[in-house]
Amino acid sequence: MTKYVYLFKEGNADMRSLLGGKGANLAEMTNLGLPVPEGMTITTDACREYYAAGKQLPAGLREEVEANLKTLEAQTGKRFGDAACPLLVSVRSGAVFSMPGMMDTILNLGLNEDTVEGLAKATNNKRFAYDAYRRFIQMFSDVVMELPKYEFETILSDQKDAQGVKFDQELSAESLRVIIDEYKDLYLMRVGEPFPEDPREQLFRAIEAVFRSWNNDRAIIYRNLNKIDHDLGTAVNVQSMVFGNMGDDCGTGVAFTRNPSTGENKLYGEYLTNAQGEDVVAGIRTPQPIAKLESEMPEIFTQFNNIALTLEKHYRNMQDIEFTIEKGKLYMLQTRNGKRTAAAAVKVACDLADEGLVTKEEAVLLVEPEQLHQLLHRQISPSAKVDVITKGLPASPGAACGHVVFDADDAEARGKKGEKVVLVRMETTPDDIHGIIEAQGVLTSRGGMTSHAAVVARGMGKPCVCGCESLKVDYNTKTIMVKDTLIKENDIITIDGATGRVMLGEVELEEPKLSDEYIKLLGWANEVKALSIRANADTPEDAAKARSFGAEGIGLVRTEHMFMAQDRLPFVQQMILAESKAERIEALAHLLPMQEGDFYGILKAMDTLPVCIRLLDPPLHEFLPSQEELVIETTRLEALGSDPQRLAEAQDLLKQVKKLHEANPMLGHRGCRLGITYPEVYEMQMRAICQAAARLAKEGLTPLPEIEIPLTISAEEMAFFKPRIDRIAAEVMEETGAKFHYSVGTMIEMPRAALLADELAEYAEFFSFGTNDLTQTCLGFSRDDAEGKFLGDYLAEKILKENPFAVLDRKGVGKLMKIATTGGRATRPNLVAGICGEHGGDPDSIAFCHEIGLDFASCSPYRVPIARLAAAHAALKG
Amino acid sequence: MTKYVYLFKEGNADMRSLLGGKGANLAEMTNLGLPVPEGMTITTDACREYYAAGKQLPAGLREEVEANLKTLEAQTGKRFGDAACPLLVSVRSGAVFSMPGMMDTILNLGLNEDTVEGLAKATNNKRFAYDAYRRFIQMFSDVVMELPKYEFETILSDQKDAQGVKFDQELSAESLRVIIDEYKDLYLMRVGEPFPEDPREQLFRAIEAVFRSWNNDRAIIYRNLNKIDHDLGTAVNVQSMVFGNMGDDCGTGVAFTRNPSTGENKLYGEYLTNAQGEDVVAGIRTPQPIAKLESEMPEIFTQFNNIALTLEKHYRNMQDIEFTIEKGKLYMLQTRNGKRTAAAAVKVACDLADEGLVTKEEAVLLVEPEQLHQLLHRQISPSAKVDVITKGLPASPGAACGHVVFDADDAEARGKKGEKVVLVRMETTPDDIHGIIEAQGVLTSRGGMTSHAAVVARGMGKPCVCGCESLKVDYNTKTIMVKDTLIKENDIITIDGATGRVMLGEVELEEPKLSDEYIKLLGWANEVKALSIRANADTPEDAAKARSFGAEGIGLVRTEHMFMAQDRLPFVQQMILAESKAERIEALAHLLPMQEGDFYGILKAMDTLPVCIRLLDPPLHEFLPSQEELVIETTRLEALGSDPQRLAEAQDLLKQVKKLHEANPMLGHRGCRLGITYPEVYEMQMRAICQAAARLAKEGLTPLPEIEIPLTISAEEMAFFKPRIDRIAAEVMEETGAKFHYSVGTMIEMPRAALLADELAEYAEFFSFGTNDLTQTCLGFSRDDAEGKFLGDYLAEKILKENPFAVLDRKGVGKLMKIATTGGRATRPNLVAGICGEHGGDPDSIAFCHEIGLDFASCSPYRVPIARLAAAHAALKG
Repeated sequence: MTKYVYLFKEGNADMRSLLGGKGANLAEMTNLGLPVPEGMTITTDACREYYAAGKQLPAGLREEVEANLKTLEAQTGKRFGDAACPLLVSVRSGAVFSMPGMMDTILNLGLNEDTVEGLAKATNNKRFAYDAYRRFIQMFSDVVMELPKYEFETILSDQKDAQGVKFDQELSAESLRVIIDEYKDLYLMRVGEPFPEDPREQLFRAIEAVFRSWNNDRAIIYRNLNKIDHDLGTAVNVQSMVFGNMGDDCGTGVAFTRNPSTGENKLYGEYLTNAQGEDVVAGIRTPQPIAKLESEMPEIFTQFNNIALTLEKHYRNMQDIEFTIEKGKLYMLQTRNGKRTAAAAVKVACDLADEGLVTKEEAVLLVEPEQLHQLLHRQISPSAKVDVITKGLPASPGAACGHVVFDADDAEARGKKGEKVVLVRMETTPDDIHGIIEAQGVLTSRGGMTSHAAVVARGMGKPCVCGCESLKVDYNTKTIMVKDTLIKENDIITIDGATGRVMLGEVELEEPKLSDEYIKLLGWANEVKALSIRANADTPEDAAKARSFGAEGIGLVRTEHMFMAQDRLPFVQQMILAESKAERIEALAHLLPMQEGDFYGILKAMDTLPVCIRLLDPPLHEFLPSQEELVIETTRLEALGSDPQRLAEAQDLLKQVKKLHEANPMLGHRGCRLGITYPEVYEMQMRAICQAAARLAKEGLTPLPEIEIPLTISAEEMAFFKPRIDRIAAEVMEETGAKFHYSVGTMIEMPRAALLADELAEYAEFFSFGTNDLTQTCLGFSRDDAEGKFLGDYLAEKILKENPFAVLDRKGVGKLMKIATTGGRATRPNLVAGICGEHGGDPDSIAFCHEIGLDFASCSPYRVPIARLAAAHAALKG
Repeated sequence: MTKYVYLFKEGNADMRSLLGGKGANLAEMTNLGLPVPEGMTITTDACREYYAAGKQLPAGLREEVEANLKTLEAQTGKRFGDAACPLLVSVRSGAVFSMPGMMDTILNLGLNEDTVEGLAKATNNKRFAYDAYRRFIQMFSDVVMELPKYEFETILSDQKDAQGVKFDQELSAESLRVIIDEYKDLYLMRVGEPFPEDPREQLFRAIEAVFRSWNNDRAIIYRNLNKIDHDLGTAVNVQSMVFGNMGDDCGTGVAFTRNPSTGENKLYGEYLTNAQGEDVVAGIRTPQPIAKLESEMPEIFTQFNNIALTLEKHYRNMQDIEFTIEKGKLYMLQTRNGKRTAAAAVKVACDLADEGLVTKEEAVLLVEPEQLHQLLHRQISPSAKVDVITKGLPASPGAACGHVVFDADDAEARGKKGEKVVLVRMETTPDDIHGIIEAQGVLTSRGGMTSHAAVVARGMGKPCVCGCESLKVDYNTKTIMVKDTLIKENDIITIDGATGRVMLGEVELEEPKLSDEYIKLLGWANEVKALSIRANADTPEDAAKARSFGAEGIGLVRTEHMFMAQDRLPFVQQMILAESKAERIEALAHLLPMQEGDFYGILKAMDTLPVCIRLLDPPLHEFLPSQEELVIETTRLEALGSDPQRLAEAQDLLKQVKKLHEANPMLGHRGCRLGITYPEVYEMQMRAICQAAARLAKEGLTPLPEIEIPLTISAEEMAFFKPRIDRIAAEVMEETGAKFHYSVGTMIEMPRAALLADELAEYAEFFSFGTNDLTQTCLGFSRDDAEGKFLGDYLAEKILKENPFAVLDRKGVGKLMKIATTGGRATRPNLVAGICGEHGGDPDSIAFCHEIGLDFASCSPYRVPIARLAAAHAALKG
């Protein structure tokens, strides 16, 4: 028969999934010989059984609880329901993962009209006993019976008014007696039966209430949010009461073994004498810092300090400890790993390792990769006063402050002059990039976490709040309405990309500081990780930034970002609109030296490290004016008949744009398809790369360009391009007399490329998984369309567990990646394989890349430290 | 050592790949004891060696040819190069597959100044000998040396002028001698050396010329067109000459063992007395029908007739035979399987089986599936006079004739009145469907073989010529300019969708007739095929048509085609633009009875056969007016300021349309994603299907609806819909008291669905591969964009061998299909799996579906017979 109930001394910390976190730790402390009030834990098995049986307590559970109560009675010398010396218990939920949504605690259970008198006699304190009873009825009615709290509060405050007192503790025993009676009347009226006098009935009802609270709305929402399995169930802890409010030799407190804000190795916490836990929360008296305990109760302090050290050593982690002092005796009520800030996490991890408590590997695992975010971006100063006017999506972390501008050109012009501006748009497009570069941050009223603004801003490490729908942006009047607030151009706002907050005025910001411990810890991460971490960068500045963050190469240079630059766009457009190959080659001749300069700068910044350069990828119409704007212009000019020459020009351009129009540009004429139809475009880029490498080689540096063909679906495409690259490289070496190393590979971003990877690897020396497009094609989800239209419903209906553009879809996209890696390496065992794009910076996705044996992951420069740590975690956990 | 040369008696018909088709058949006839002039075949091995060695004849080849020449000399009693009794030979190419692009024949090789005199003496006919020599020089110069033909023709015609004669055969021996000398002078001048006198030199140069002709431009184009491997190489046949032009007891002819037009079992062909093969082609004398030979040379006729019977029996197929009669002796020069019309193919196959010459299975293999096309559509009457003004792409077979209309509404209105119209558009959209339905055929100036017009027309079995770029269609003036011809609305044109021809005026058409043999043969096909053949049909009429063609079910009912109907579109639009669920449900209530009626009709037409109904698939904006038209309208109204109310309405609609606009609709909010976001839409369709089935069940019929969820990517979607269908079916059965069978499945059209098929099969009872969309996502090719933009270059550069939308991409899409079928059946062994969409009617794709063990293939009704035959071929060949 299943055992449903464990005495604390029967359990241990490893039994977390059966006993819950709290129960397991109480058991562990008991077995360490620490002073823990006696108790028992009802298992999560019992909870699961309860639900499986249609909300019936499992057979045998009652009997087991009774038997264990007997043991508790023997241990405490008290008896449950005994009028003379009553055993009182607390009942607490205790899930495997801490869950604030659930029922927390019922104290003083076991009190009734008999036992309350016994308690009064035993403590020689009638007021204390009645107060305990009053609290119990109130808690039981609230959490077990779900009666409206305020009705009880009203009785309490009415009585205080009647007695002319202000605080609960000023009420006399007699007044409390009146309250108890009124509570019971209210209970009878609301429930239709009297408040239970039988302590056993109280207990089993409380146990059931804990089980039920597992599935209340708050708990379900919390689990969804934190991706906790709904089938785990909760344990229930039944523990004999100790009281911190029986006099001045009593007290209660909470302490961390180290400072959770800074990580400083010093006991940190607070306590109240003559108080119960809820009194601390009520905030009537200000708690004392824990250090004060040393002078107030030196022996207790020494004992507590030793226990804290013991627990930290035992758990090999900073602990968060709850304790109570009853009549000069210390009791431990809870211990758990303490939550901490990123800075503290890094310091604690390093210190624990330095102190020899944990290994370097364990230290690395003590910091969550995503936490590093906090350390890498400017933040709102914690002491700053903020006026939050609205919230959007936290699209790219960091805080920014500046004058509102509505136009990318303005942002660029003013930004270049050194002014601080925040670019506000309904949404951004590739046309806005030059403005985003010069702005402090970006705020949009439309678009999700993977909208253009969000992706670009994250790539640049620029703060961004997007999809802020309460903003009514009006480009004509250059104003924003937010509810009743009007924001005009040039007004100053502050945005916090980590939380999505938008604030009026200038708010004090704090620069990121990277501590010695941070550098040490990231160094340890490097020692253990298997994945090489690269960055995506399109400029020498980004490349240098990435290198400073520890990037071990560039995983993706997007050459089209260079094409978007204002000084190049005219030539790019000339190239696109060319009516002959000769005309196109002429335009390309202008672009060649510019591209060579781009590549020179990046390769130089990454000297001796690999730089993967993707040849032109986006459809050509992205470089032309919008079709709709041209339609509007021509229609208007036609209707007005006022400017025939302008009309003719616009019509002509519209015709060209329409020729390039595509029904589904994502699946259209882009990537290497451009290189097949216009080989001269790709050849210009190949030459620019080779010339840049040759220049650097002559300067004595070691450029390592990797030339990447995007959007392939077949070996035949590689067979088309590979000889061209080899020819051009040979020509450049011949022309310059310089030798340099280069390699040729492809992005795997179409399912067919993954399926035919064995053939592609005949020509490709490396693969880089473009998981953004691979996700789009594998799932048939247009990223631009999915987010606004149906992805929300897919997540709400739990058809997908995660946004597949944020967290790699292991089952689908991941399966293709496995097929491709296996296939590619079968052909070419030393094939280099990696991932670029958004997923390359996501810890869960990085773990998967490690699992399937990729060589590198590439992400935006600002995520490099996170990715390094995530890669180390993957290696240590794998 | 490799043997490069085989005497005819050393070979046989099975050695085709080594000896080529012609050589293998000459060997076979020789061994059958038929009168074949002696000869040898140089193998395809030798040709491949020739190319492998950089165009050098392989070592040992010369010696082998010499040795075999000796045997020829012994057999014929003549000697090669002997002045007294010269052996003359023909040299012919002979590839494995017949290849008109290659060098064909050199006759009379072995003649020189000595042997020509010997020939004159031996035949006692100087004129004959000189004429033979003249012809040889001309052929050798042309096909071996590639000298310009017309220069030789000029010498010949100059001489005829000089002699005042009209025909070659009027030239005297003396004149021919003059011509020979002038030919030789010309040769010397052009080549720089004298015409080769040495017969051996002539021979080896001719052999090399045949090898070279394997890779001339025409041959390469032909092989590309017919998908023949470029590495096969050609054989060369060297055969001793016989002459049909040595007198009236000589002759030459060609005959089929049966009528190649009708299949009638009667010798069919023609011959000329006293003539060589080329004379028949020259058309100076009209050849005699072969029957005439019976009276003219009764013994020869009997002998030939017997040989024909022997060959047909031996090859178990209709033969195409070439023969020559030299001085009263019959020689066989070639036999091969005869080309035939579709009607003849069907009749010959049936007759051969009935005669016991072949089995039923072999008979089925004697007809190519694609040939059946000819039998199933109206055609231009073979006797009709046609005035072809231009040609477009042959997009949907069949001929149609009618008045030109430019608008789908006109087409519908006039078509419904019984008028015959041809709809002419620049391109068609889903808005034009009602017009296409009522038109005789469709002609477009833009769009490829898979454009909207082409796909829809093929689906309806309606003739269509598309991409006819020489048409300048002007909707305003309602005219078409084709070069200099003006076609006005209402003019009559005829189009031939099988050839792409566009003709002025009414051309006589011929109705398709399906013979008894056709029905018999398709019956045999059904006996052997494993794949069930279904049709795609959206109306009861199409379903009935499909059933009459032998469809064994409906593989795809596209419910959106019903939504497009003029009487429904307003409700569909109301549903789309609904601002609340209640409003949407009201619109759906109007659609429910209409949809029920649709399904009732189709299920009734297919009583007892499965009907797979796909729930709504396309993005909703397809049902709304075009965004560009609305932009134009609002801009114009705004500029003119004339009609504020109209403007407000248009702006409002534009806003709605923009809200639904998608960047990549193919990957957008469509398919079951609509059913997730608007469950009520799918529930209406589920109910309509169930109600229709219930009505039929009550009428005593056996409807077999299969409810198909489109565009799934996960089991979770099926888990969302399956219980809804089961609930609605149960409700309808409860409400009506009728019982009916139904099943629930999904279309596999996204890579992720294929990869996760094992999970999908937990819920899906059937899979239907939507290979159109699977091709789009697997390759990342938007069908609408690829064809006009880059697919042409991909095919030209041989990056893809086939248009993947026409012929299933086995390597990529096929691999996903295999993964899905294997995965699905691992979960559900009795899973029904099939293919729908364009590939379902393509024989090569059908063969693949058979190979991977699918259960059915579904295609347009008119392709059902082709698919049945293709499925039978697949089963017999597999």
